[in-house]
Amino acid sequence: MNEFELIETYFNWGTTDPSTHLGIGDDCAVINVEPGYQLLSSVDTLLEGVHFSSNTSAQDIAYKALAVNLSDLAAMGATPKYFTLALTLPNIDEQWLGDFSASLKELANEYKLSLVGGDTTKGPLSITINITGQVKKGKALLRSSAQVGDGIFVSNTLGDAAYAWRQIQNNQMPSKNCLSQLNRPKPQVQLGQNLIGIANACIDISDGLEQDLSHVLRRSGVGASINVNKLMLSDEVSVYVNKSNDWCIALAGGDDYELCFTVPEDRIARLESITRELGITLTQIGVITQEKGLLIEGIDKTCESYQHF
Amino acid sequence: MNEFELIETYFNWGTTDPSTHLGIGDDCAVINVEPGYQLLSSVDTLLEGVHFSSNTSAQDIAYKALAVNLSDLAAMGATPKYFTLALTLPNIDEQWLGDFSASLKELANEYKLSLVGGDTTKGPLSITINITGQVKKGKALLRSSAQVGDGIFVSNTLGDAAYAWRQIQNNQMPSKNCLSQLNRPKPQVQLGQNLIGIANACIDISDGLEQDLSHVLRRSGVGASINVNKLMLSDEVSVYVNKSNDWCIALAGGDDYELCFTVPEDRIARLESITRELGITLTQIGVITQEKGLLIEGIDKTCESYQHF
Repeated sequence: MNEFELIETYFNWGTTDPSTHLGIGDDCAVINVEPGYQLLSSVDTLLEGVHFSSNTSAQDIAYKALAVNLSDLAAMGATPKYFTLALTLPNIDEQWLGDFSASLKELANEYKLSLVGGDTTKGPLSITINITGQVKKGKALLRSSAQVGDGIFVSNTLGDAAYAWRQIQNNQMPSKNCLSQLNRPKPQVQLGQNLIGIANACIDISDGLEQDLSHVLRRSGVGASINVNKLMLSDEVSVYVNKSNDWCIALAGGDDYELCFTVPEDRIARLESITRELGITLTQIGVITQEKGLLIEGIDKTCESYQHF
Repeated sequence: MNEFELIETYFNWGTTDPSTHLGIGDDCAVINVEPGYQLLSSVDTLLEGVHFSSNTSAQDIAYKALAVNLSDLAAMGATPKYFTLALTLPNIDEQWLGDFSASLKELANEYKLSLVGGDTTKGPLSITINITGQVKKGKALLRSSAQVGDGIFVSNTLGDAAYAWRQIQNNQMPSKNCLSQLNRPKPQVQLGQNLIGIANACIDISDGLEQDLSHVLRRSGVGASINVNKLMLSDEVSVYVNKSNDWCIALAGGDDYELCFTVPEDRIARLESITRELGITLTQIGVITQEKGLLIEGIDKTCESYQHF
């Protein structure tokens, strides 16, 4: 099987999206853009041994590679449109490719996302996805728009993926829930879209709440005060934190892919209908303050955030 | 130096392009799209040991990683707009990063191309660039539009990069010209743009003329007859081919990044002004035929094209 057969067999599954004028098969894809919209673009690489272990299934790798990119669109309130896939493979394993492709296609179709192009290379397993979405002009949720007095909210629970990862490293079996948060994080695309017109600033929590919220604060020129006791934790993480007092698993564990966003007081009531409609828990963990820096109440030490190098 | 400092220091050089509403620094870049245009998207990975050797300079790696992507836009007649960079590095080497960044920026600025986002990962050296350009709606040069009777043209010379690569593998020193074609191929962006309204079909020759022209033929449902004696060769490659009769270096060597395109007879005269204006040699090497398949006159054996796996 050569590169062209590989692409035809596993990745040229077509699209029904009219904005893809031309997908896989030419030097470039050709895309139509609706007037009145802006495009959102983001790229993320997953590398074996860094972002997933060598015994992660092809399905879970494909899912997560696309999900973490969808999460970046979610953080801007964007509607997913299309993506490209740069896949580096040690060899052609048709079983692996079949599993990878089926899982990627399933998640892409769930979000009406077209795979419009790609590149395959022989080398250590690595997946780079470049995703593009759209928002109405000027409506994207930015990191830089938090205002003093905004409430700070987080969706669902934090720390589950980091806890699962830690358990795997220690040869313990994570709970089904935590493992699912690690391998199959749900990108909060609908939540992001629903936050347009409500949230002032938004970010997805991929590197840990402490680090990611700090990005929002720095870009917005504000500070924040949060309280760890307000954080919503899953039962598993709650038991672990109560025993160990290791709040850092939730503050700096990373890989959560929940949204952290700020909402002015007079719009907080509007979050209730989102919670109801999407079945998502939204928890206020603090407020944006004039005084710069991130004040974390309820812990007496700082956490070490994940560093890529 | 952490990931954020790395990005700020080496890759957040800003843009003057008004279509980049928001560049590096948020979850996604935000892009404005002019009405009446379509977007063109392509992605290419360069991997150490596969696409370049371990002693290639950071400047040449950066140049080529962007140039091969520009070449894909060139093949569609597109105007470059923006790109993302996914960079996997074994470690943080500030000298290397400074050289890489300066070279990337220089080529990007030459084409008014904005770097709008990226991702950095620790691992074996690998560069994935996703490039986006634009064309007026419906004007992109496709592989699928060659017509019977069209003349088949190639820009400049073929085989120089492949010859340089072969010499390096044999511990010989390539000529300055051939080495430059290998490490610093000029993307034919201006040529591609000038071919809109003239060429019926177009492709860039990255995998070798034989393989790439065959893509055009298959997608257009036509055949072609070309003659190797019409191919323009550099002095070095010409001497080599005369001695060895190894035409495959020009037909299947790959890494040329010249354009191969088809032009109906009544528009061929219009190529002269392009040649004059851009200082590019355009050589007719054959014609598109009704009978399927690629007939190559002047050689008595078939070439083995580069296979990625």
